[in-house]
Amino acid sequence: MAAYVAPVRDMRFVLDHVIGYEDLTKLPGYAEAGGDFVATILEEAGKFTAEVLGPLRRSADAEGARIENGQVRTAKGFAEAYRQYVEGGWNGISLDPAYGGQGLPYIFGVILNEMIASANTAFGLCPMLNHGATEALLAHGSDELKATYLPKLISGEWTGTMNLTEPQAGTDVGALRTKAERQADGTYLISGQKIFITYGDHDMTDNIIHLVLARLPDAPAGTKGISLFLVPKFLVNKDGSLGARNDLRPVSLEHKLGIHASPTCVMSYGDNGRCVGYLIGEENKGMSCMFTMMNLARLGVGMQGLGVAELAYQQALGYARERVQGKPIGASDAKAPILEHPDVRRMLLTIKASVEAVRAIGYLNAKAIDLAHHAADREERWWNQGLADLLTPLSKAYGSDVGVEAASLAIQVHGGMGFIEETGVAQTLRDVRITPIYEGTNGVQAMDLIGRKLGQDAGEHWQALFNRIEAFVNDLPPDGDLGAIADGVGHALAALRRATAWMMAEREQSLRAAAAGATPYLRLFAMTVGAYLLGLGAKRATAMLANGEGDAAYLQARVVVARFYVEQLLPPAVALVEPIVKGDALLYALSVEQLAV
Amino acid sequence: MAAYVAPVRDMRFVLDHVIGYEDLTKLPGYAEAGGDFVATILEEAGKFTAEVLGPLRRSADAEGARIENGQVRTAKGFAEAYRQYVEGGWNGISLDPAYGGQGLPYIFGVILNEMIASANTAFGLCPMLNHGATEALLAHGSDELKATYLPKLISGEWTGTMNLTEPQAGTDVGALRTKAERQADGTYLISGQKIFITYGDHDMTDNIIHLVLARLPDAPAGTKGISLFLVPKFLVNKDGSLGARNDLRPVSLEHKLGIHASPTCVMSYGDNGRCVGYLIGEENKGMSCMFTMMNLARLGVGMQGLGVAELAYQQALGYARERVQGKPIGASDAKAPILEHPDVRRMLLTIKASVEAVRAIGYLNAKAIDLAHHAADREERWWNQGLADLLTPLSKAYGSDVGVEAASLAIQVHGGMGFIEETGVAQTLRDVRITPIYEGTNGVQAMDLIGRKLGQDAGEHWQALFNRIEAFVNDLPPDGDLGAIADGVGHALAALRRATAWMMAEREQSLRAAAAGATPYLRLFAMTVGAYLLGLGAKRATAMLANGEGDAAYLQARVVVARFYVEQLLPPAVALVEPIVKGDALLYALSVEQLAV
Repeated sequence: MAAYVAPVRDMRFVLDHVIGYEDLTKLPGYAEAGGDFVATILEEAGKFTAEVLGPLRRSADAEGARIENGQVRTAKGFAEAYRQYVEGGWNGISLDPAYGGQGLPYIFGVILNEMIASANTAFGLCPMLNHGATEALLAHGSDELKATYLPKLISGEWTGTMNLTEPQAGTDVGALRTKAERQADGTYLISGQKIFITYGDHDMTDNIIHLVLARLPDAPAGTKGISLFLVPKFLVNKDGSLGARNDLRPVSLEHKLGIHASPTCVMSYGDNGRCVGYLIGEENKGMSCMFTMMNLARLGVGMQGLGVAELAYQQALGYARERVQGKPIGASDAKAPILEHPDVRRMLLTIKASVEAVRAIGYLNAKAIDLAHHAADREERWWNQGLADLLTPLSKAYGSDVGVEAASLAIQVHGGMGFIEETGVAQTLRDVRITPIYEGTNGVQAMDLIGRKLGQDAGEHWQALFNRIEAFVNDLPPDGDLGAIADGVGHALAALRRATAWMMAEREQSLRAAAAGATPYLRLFAMTVGAYLLGLGAKRATAMLANGEGDAAYLQARVVVARFYVEQLLPPAVALVEPIVKGDALLYALSVEQLAV
Repeated sequence: MAAYVAPVRDMRFVLDHVIGYEDLTKLPGYAEAGGDFVATILEEAGKFTAEVLGPLRRSADAEGARIENGQVRTAKGFAEAYRQYVEGGWNGISLDPAYGGQGLPYIFGVILNEMIASANTAFGLCPMLNHGATEALLAHGSDELKATYLPKLISGEWTGTMNLTEPQAGTDVGALRTKAERQADGTYLISGQKIFITYGDHDMTDNIIHLVLARLPDAPAGTKGISLFLVPKFLVNKDGSLGARNDLRPVSLEHKLGIHASPTCVMSYGDNGRCVGYLIGEENKGMSCMFTMMNLARLGVGMQGLGVAELAYQQALGYARERVQGKPIGASDAKAPILEHPDVRRMLLTIKASVEAVRAIGYLNAKAIDLAHHAADREERWWNQGLADLLTPLSKAYGSDVGVEAASLAIQVHGGMGFIEETGVAQTLRDVRITPIYEGTNGVQAMDLIGRKLGQDAGEHWQALFNRIEAFVNDLPPDGDLGAIADGVGHALAALRRATAWMMAEREQSLRAAAAGATPYLRLFAMTVGAYLLGLGAKRATAMLANGEGDAAYLQARVVVARFYVEQLLPPAVALVEPIVKGDALLYALSVEQLAV
């Protein structure tokens, strides 16, 4: 099977020629992060992920994680790989230098996340959750908590977890029951059970910092009565050394379809009534603390989908180049690799074009987050925050859906061998199938898009984005590859405008009718933006070709891939406009009895 | 988790009100197979599959099959379940009464296959492969071979296998190397290795009859030099008793993504030069013998996809009815099952409508096979054989694709619980993922459709089918549900006609250009036929409602489901016409180097 190679050239193309990475180097603190520096970081990250994490992917999946004597043991090699990850300084790559982070643009963290997801999805969940916890603490923790915990969370010496879900409280976080009781010393006693806690315990670091949502005895019902607590596995002494073991433990691990090497724990807090927690932010404001990191985590999951889709592409291409079977249509008698069969080419280009679209959306999203935090101009920060908010559900849902679709196509390219675990491509599908579910199911993302993001700032952000796409389309030549792209993107934008106008009107009339079309609407939206960004790249590549700049073969391929996306993949998404505007009547026409067998 | 219940009412509706099952009861030998008889058979089959096979689904998946002392051991309960299957007479339900079969219409075998696939996919592979071997022997075996082997294959006392694949010969069967050498006594010595042999060994019967493709020393190259042999595990004495062990053995079992309880064997023939085989049909005519059963096996795999999709629906609906989470949009404060959320309803109806479409296509396909074999009129036999040939790639590819899509949606409905193996819905996806691959990948099906089936009998069959759909559309009222259905099916037919005209012209110019669009073309074709058949059911239901016949709530649901399929699911398929007619230029615009990372 083909080993993962970080697609550094593709990443650079998006950075340099699609999203305008150079804007970030003009921000305070990012001046050094240009040109050669970008190349060095990407090369080194690619080397680390491919050489250290990639080789553990299959073996760790087969071995999985287990509980021994109340302690989670991770698969062979994980602890050592994690040590190298920390020593390489990778964990803090985009994190606050005030606490020891490297302070690089946020987009580098996103790119590293993509690479890790490609090389070893199950490993990558540990840093991903740690980053979520770190961001929440950074934004809402007291100075004392930050001073005690942030340096080691940012270096990666300790890891962080996010504890939201309980059996009755999944999507509906407000239904949680874990209790927190105020103590005289200002700390809290936590008690309750949490499920689906990723890396809730492991043997890779000597402390684990849990962020736990819980409810005070006098808290209001629902999401307005939730508070966020920091609950360390080992209490930390004033001097930073580890103190007593806190009263919490992993109860059991889930048996999952995929990401076997990532321990998904049932966690119990306060079995003996002695579980100490520290409040983060204010009492009953836990949900807004969680929202801070949720957008970031959602982009992170979308980029996991991207990373797995990239791996799927490399697996499928590797197999298609090597597997000789049958003779191509119209060829002489000689047998050839299956890459020469049109349907195999179709599958490969489908994955490739989708990967490039998701990458462009995700990196644009990351750039907007950087600008939202660091731009000098207040208006620019506001604008980019709105853009990031708008793009996040697209990145998450479309990125993870593409991950699943790409993995399934990669199995198909392998034929019977794809169904055999040894080729490693079955694992690709098993691992990625969780991404449309966690950090808010893709149905929740679609509701977020139509329920919250379309209305934000009176629609300013989507209107401006649509206008930008329209200007791009109008500016393209009428013929050739770019003309075909203009045509397709123009049609898609018209459909998206129509669907959006319907959504904006319907949201006021019947949110349920709007919600009925939310999922196809998100698909239409994401693919239109994806087509636009691929088109931007194609336009830029065409200009460079005309100027004799760059690698001609590579640039020509960007034009072909963009046109393939627009001509072959976009039309079914554009056709969703009709289903979208039909509303919810048919969905609710049947009673439960009529739905039953 | 919800236990499988055979959807007998839905099956009856398709038989009685969509495909016109009653035509079959007019055939010689089928006069008894009407009315109450159908009800009894379906009820009993539903009971057997749900009560005997269904309960073993999860446990057998967890246990899997294994090799002990050179013998495959199946999961606990399988041997006993198989004994009941044989004793109940289920194996020969549609097989030749001259050899002990029950001689019921072929469609009952198809329906039973669907039920078994729902209840226990891995178990069902054993009878499915047995049927393939049985059909090949029936059609091409000598009287002596038939007399010796058919009665026990038809009763199920022995099972049959199909041995085609070798490491270098998958889709390209002609590349196989297994050898057969003529012996003086008229038998052959077989030697070689086969892979992916489903139930190549097991402990459920005391003999296993292998059908093996092999090549004579003087055979022409490729598919024209392949012969088919019957190779029993135990030789059979003149009196029918078992003789010596033949020189063949299972070497190892594959570790697969799913269908864990179905042993997928590497088989070795003639390790000691003593493996005896008997020629089926003529030397070097093995491929045509295989084609006989391949169409049946392909329909069988499509119905596996259907069966799994039905299970996925029942799992998803069961969970959605029970899982309480959040309050529905516009509802009061009361929490409700997630079935009340619009996006969950969309997913459930997507599965439901797709299941009903595939079932209608598959049963129509089965009816055509029955008529092709048993109709009194030669012209009618010819016509129906052509229809069956045309529908088979649709049944196989669309049925299996729907199986995968349905299973993935069912996981999504379950949220985080869908990723946990205990709910059993992850297994649904794992089990079904092989169906788009085996018995000819879905890419091969698409090529069969455009390369062989479109041209068969000068296009007579698709032209007549299209005309039938057009007449149906023209006959519907302009308004209401049926009007909406007429509108959608009419648009789809226009797109299908356009794509077909392009295909017919392009096949002559450049088969590769036609092949480039084969997969989306098959999707457009299958969904147009599916929409037409659901529309037929809706029309019939509307008429019955007007006449006060039948269960009104049930009939209304058929109209809603048909309209949902046409309005919500069909448009993206219709939009494929544009990609289809674009040809292969973009697919071949990139070199291998340009495709590489």
